[in-house]
Amino acid sequence: MKTMKRVKTVTARSSDFGKWYTDVCLKAELIAYSEAKGFIIYLPYGYALWENIQKHLNCTLQKTGHQNVYFPLVFPEKLFHKEKNHIQGFSPEAAMITTTGKKNLSEKLVIRPTSEILFSQYYSKTITSYRDLPKLYNQWCNVVRWEKTTKPFLRGKEFLWQEGHTVHATEQEAMQQTLSILDIYQKLGKNLLALPFVCGKKTETEKFAGALITYSIEALMHDGQALQAGTSHYLGTNFAKSFQIQFQDCDHQKKYVHQTSWGVSTRLIGALIMVHSDDEGLVLPPYVSPMQIVIIPLQPQDDAVKQTSENLFSILQKNYRVHLDLQDKTAGWKFSQYELKGVPLRIEIGKRGLENDEVTIFQRYNFAKQNIKTKDLPSQIPQLFETIHNNMYQKALQHLEQNRKQATTYEEFKTYLKQGGYVAMSISGTDAELQIKQETGATARVILETNLITANCPVTNKKALQTVLFARAY
Amino acid sequence: MKTMKRVKTVTARSSDFGKWYTDVCLKAELIAYSEAKGFIIYLPYGYALWENIQKHLNCTLQKTGHQNVYFPLVFPEKLFHKEKNHIQGFSPEAAMITTTGKKNLSEKLVIRPTSEILFSQYYSKTITSYRDLPKLYNQWCNVVRWEKTTKPFLRGKEFLWQEGHTVHATEQEAMQQTLSILDIYQKLGKNLLALPFVCGKKTETEKFAGALITYSIEALMHDGQALQAGTSHYLGTNFAKSFQIQFQDCDHQKKYVHQTSWGVSTRLIGALIMVHSDDEGLVLPPYVSPMQIVIIPLQPQDDAVKQTSENLFSILQKNYRVHLDLQDKTAGWKFSQYELKGVPLRIEIGKRGLENDEVTIFQRYNFAKQNIKTKDLPSQIPQLFETIHNNMYQKALQHLEQNRKQATTYEEFKTYLKQGGYVAMSISGTDAELQIKQETGATARVILETNLITANCPVTNKKALQTVLFARAY
Repeated sequence: MKTMKRVKTVTARSSDFGKWYTDVCLKAELIAYSEAKGFIIYLPYGYALWENIQKHLNCTLQKTGHQNVYFPLVFPEKLFHKEKNHIQGFSPEAAMITTTGKKNLSEKLVIRPTSEILFSQYYSKTITSYRDLPKLYNQWCNVVRWEKTTKPFLRGKEFLWQEGHTVHATEQEAMQQTLSILDIYQKLGKNLLALPFVCGKKTETEKFAGALITYSIEALMHDGQALQAGTSHYLGTNFAKSFQIQFQDCDHQKKYVHQTSWGVSTRLIGALIMVHSDDEGLVLPPYVSPMQIVIIPLQPQDDAVKQTSENLFSILQKNYRVHLDLQDKTAGWKFSQYELKGVPLRIEIGKRGLENDEVTIFQRYNFAKQNIKTKDLPSQIPQLFETIHNNMYQKALQHLEQNRKQATTYEEFKTYLKQGGYVAMSISGTDAELQIKQETGATARVILETNLITANCPVTNKKALQTVLFARAY
Repeated sequence: MKTMKRVKTVTARSSDFGKWYTDVCLKAELIAYSEAKGFIIYLPYGYALWENIQKHLNCTLQKTGHQNVYFPLVFPEKLFHKEKNHIQGFSPEAAMITTTGKKNLSEKLVIRPTSEILFSQYYSKTITSYRDLPKLYNQWCNVVRWEKTTKPFLRGKEFLWQEGHTVHATEQEAMQQTLSILDIYQKLGKNLLALPFVCGKKTETEKFAGALITYSIEALMHDGQALQAGTSHYLGTNFAKSFQIQFQDCDHQKKYVHQTSWGVSTRLIGALIMVHSDDEGLVLPPYVSPMQIVIIPLQPQDDAVKQTSENLFSILQKNYRVHLDLQDKTAGWKFSQYELKGVPLRIEIGKRGLENDEVTIFQRYNFAKQNIKTKDLPSQIPQLFETIHNNMYQKALQHLEQNRKQATTYEEFKTYLKQGGYVAMSISGTDAELQIKQETGATARVILETNLITANCPVTNKKALQTVLFARAY
């Protein structure tokens, strides 16, 4: 393990975590800022992360019978008023098209902040019978929310996401869908991003505007703040009643449909950065990394070195996203560069090593270097990647578990909260939750399905009704 | 070949081509209309066509070193004024965000009608040296143009596309890029969509607002109207000068960059429909079809029939997008349904055939039926698909060639034009082109690189300077 900071360009996390984060985003060339405040540019390296997330999730959702669609960017303002809770939640941050520059529109068009309204309107016109159900639609798109403060990937005026909108004949089936998506998201974190999540139900205060129940996956950032990384909502018959989405069931009765909606966004990339990365820059787990392996010939002019590098490249590129760097720059510069970019595995090929038929491999996440016989390398990559991935996951899980405490008094709660991370406390309800938020800045992340920690709520001294996991959050 | 119209739901092309087209779009469930006029919903079957186009083109563009990015949906209005030709072309149809509903914005934001401005602004801030070049960026996104009349896929207020924006050190390299993209588009048509294009340079009148040269791929619809299906622009140093995109070359001189931009959109789906489909509905070539094969057991209750159907399905699904229809509906209903949806190959499995170990295959594009030994079928699919694809391409090519004429007089031009299709004529220039457009409704599609047909322009009687292919167009 190393302690000296080699790349001078990234702010240390300990000195300014916020600055460190934007440094990594910008210097690893994940994003750039655009001229429109709060709107970011996804550069190739950042966008490739998103494409890899898309591929993985699309593959899963295809197996579960979900179908991709694309609904419009806008809807007429009048539709906004159909579901009361929904408009209350979203209208303050909805952007609207009012003019084409030459001519004002007769009706304002709302740019989708999310698309429950668009899907519900469509479903109301097309679903008539139980034979039309279920509908398992998903779309990948951009949405716009007029956020006041923005941060790359975590909160932007525009972001990219997938939003699933499903329709079911029964509550049971819709609930099952809601939970199975939560499971899919959890596995996406575990298997692709090496991110452990805390999953659970949101409180009434924190649930989605228009939902009956919201489940959430929550990640814990390196600085001890939580991040809601995805949500899965059971909408009940709320939208069905507002939009009159009814079907004739096999028993000939007219019934309202039960809906779900769920989404993960480019926020996942923010979580990926804030959980795994370090003061040298980005650290990426191998399966999602746009560049999984970089080969650096130490003496690119040397014939044997060049030959071995090119051979290895041509073997590895069949199965991996691998890059051979033949630029006319020093090896040291290249090392720093790919460490900054978080490439999980570096292969250094040099004259000295080749005398023993060896190359050196360097693992980004733990800075471990080892020599390995050149001919053995290709067959060892799968195991190496698996180990790197699992270790990164375990490290993040350990961080999560070490920063997850239980409070039996409000004082204890405040003390733990200052240390960062999650604090569980059994509370009386919304009154306690709001008081905690106001007094400490911590928000209810999820309701835990565990026994009560204390019989009474330490905040209100009323009878405790549920145990809630709190944290300061992005 | 059959003549009787089996599916009653689609209007005949001969009776109303426009109605036929929207019938196919709606009844094959490619799209639905949304509440916002001019904005369509891409349903699973329609969106899957787009996804297949994306996959194919992404694969090509990866090999050519292009990188996917994502730039913002909007840009501040002031940037619009930087390139004069560009704003003249696009401002009349630009939608703008002016308010969040609660609060008006201090500066209007233009929703991208295309993203030259966004990319140029970014390039101006990041390109400094010849080492930064070339930049080969591409993005898949939605754009908004306030079109007055709209038609599914062909012209909408919002559409989906890819737009490439590249930057080069020299004119030569940028021109090469412009032309190589044209070639990629032509091959996309030929190899994936079975669509032949006429390719060529646009006239000054028809070129992209802000480009020096525009190349276009033009498809000929079944009704004899042309459709611009994609464009590749050489922007020269126009945007470079407006946005001050300069680099220091290896000779230490400061120089303006040379740019290109190019795009194909969901219009390609419109072309696919209008070129190949018939009065029974959609006809899809196999490589782009979301469902390549449908298996229909004629007696689904029969054990042998069901067994064979399931066996075939499990073999074929390894290599093809295949669907086994076990719905409790008549075979006749199913036949019509999948013909309407344009599934290239239908496999009918029935008791009678199985007695001879045979199944029946039906090819959608020519209605040909033949019996084939069950065990031989899987190995014959590749050849079958190739034949279907090539025949569909040849048929479309024949239609194009049969409807492409040369006029030596203006009268002849008008006569040919009424018959539909392309008419080539040698003209004096913009004056003739505009007169033709006004008097006949035909627009200049591309400039042909051939010898002059007549020495003088039949319209103006001035010296003919170029031969232009005209057509009425969507």
